[in-house]
Amino acid sequence: MAIKHILFDIDDTLFPTSEFAEYARKNAIKAMIMMGLDESSNKLYSMLEKIIKEKGSNYENHFDILCNKLGIKENKSKYVAAAVLAYHNTKHSISPFPSVPRTLLSLKENYKIHIASEGNAVKQWDKLIRLGLSLFFENVFISEELKIKKSPKFFTIILKKLKAKPQECIMVGDKPDSDILYAKKVGIKTIRINSGRYKNIKSDADLELNHFFELPNAVKKLNSMI
Amino acid sequence: MAIKHILFDIDDTLFPTSEFAEYARKNAIKAMIMMGLDESSNKLYSMLEKIIKEKGSNYENHFDILCNKLGIKENKSKYVAAAVLAYHNTKHSISPFPSVPRTLLSLKENYKIHIASEGNAVKQWDKLIRLGLSLFFENVFISEELKIKKSPKFFTIILKKLKAKPQECIMVGDKPDSDILYAKKVGIKTIRINSGRYKNIKSDADLELNHFFELPNAVKKLNSMI
Repeated sequence: MAIKHILFDIDDTLFPTSEFAEYARKNAIKAMIMMGLDESSNKLYSMLEKIIKEKGSNYENHFDILCNKLGIKENKSKYVAAAVLAYHNTKHSISPFPSVPRTLLSLKENYKIHIASEGNAVKQWDKLIRLGLSLFFENVFISEELKIKKSPKFFTIILKKLKAKPQECIMVGDKPDSDILYAKKVGIKTIRINSGRYKNIKSDADLELNHFFELPNAVKKLNSMI
Repeated sequence: MAIKHILFDIDDTLFPTSEFAEYARKNAIKAMIMMGLDESSNKLYSMLEKIIKEKGSNYENHFDILCNKLGIKENKSKYVAAAVLAYHNTKHSISPFPSVPRTLLSLKENYKIHIASEGNAVKQWDKLIRLGLSLFFENVFISEELKIKKSPKFFTIILKKLKAKPQECIMVGDKPDSDILYAKKVGIKTIRINSGRYKNIKSDADLELNHFFELPNAVKKLNSMI
């Protein structure tokens, strides 16, 4: 039975999400200083990192909290607006890992490609559009729309929607648990892209790649192993 | 007693807010078609206009409603994401009326200039920053922060904060009631910029201008009349 479908994660698989987030936070800090804040950017950045650790990743309130911790009362909105604007401008100019577009186009010649992603549907679509990849995929499966978090069940639902057998599918992603382990559990073959926050954490993937452009050969290899 | 302070409205006074909003809506419609919607842009635009009239100006939900009215069920998030992204991209690339930056800089040589604006503080600051004007103003008074809508009282509070007499101030804006009438009621001189939605509605302004660059002469004229 040959591979027919390849499923892709988005964040840290198609583009360097974690890098962009760090860069966006640094630009937000610079923008606050540009608006008149007399503090060192290193101090502000480490304060911000602490707030993010405490509060999770909903950034709009982070800058509000940062201003409060700094005791800013007058024109707090000015600093918040400048920070959020710089943050958005950076996060909005995302681009894919350089070999992603051509590799996906080449894979499309022999396989059906789909997105299998965790998260908010509009936000994940927004990323695909900004990356210039939104029209590449046959189906875009997002956990919010399937009403289930990434889990073995999430992949079972996708298999049913594709009318495919697990052995006909490969999942490509960066996260050892949600992209690799859960897909593997339902019998889908897995390829791990070594990038992002989980880079140094071992996974049970069938194959591990350092570069996206190695994917067509990796798929061929898995295909011949079936 | 000479003029010392000039207060400025933001929307449709410093930049063509209404024009940008229309352009943004048109680009949002185009983006939905680009993502695969087979409908004429004219039809979609008039549907959207109707929704905006019914629901007010909170655009994010407008596109959701538009999709519902079109009976889109599959991949609704795709169309909403594309529309909101195109809308934001247009609204985010705002620029001032062309003579605004140099006119403000020239007024700053003889007067203190301030913002006196209705709205959400972070949103109004966001506009000033995007327009490249945020560092031009001595004070930025926004109704949300003063905890009062534009009204005679709004202007009284500003006079108190500036420690200024009404005769020392001019308000510059486009709206016959909130920018002109209310400022006039507390004795502030008023200059009307003829732009935006209220362009053809008569006002009681001391002076009416068609172009922002006429402002320095208009201020001189009002100054000599006191």
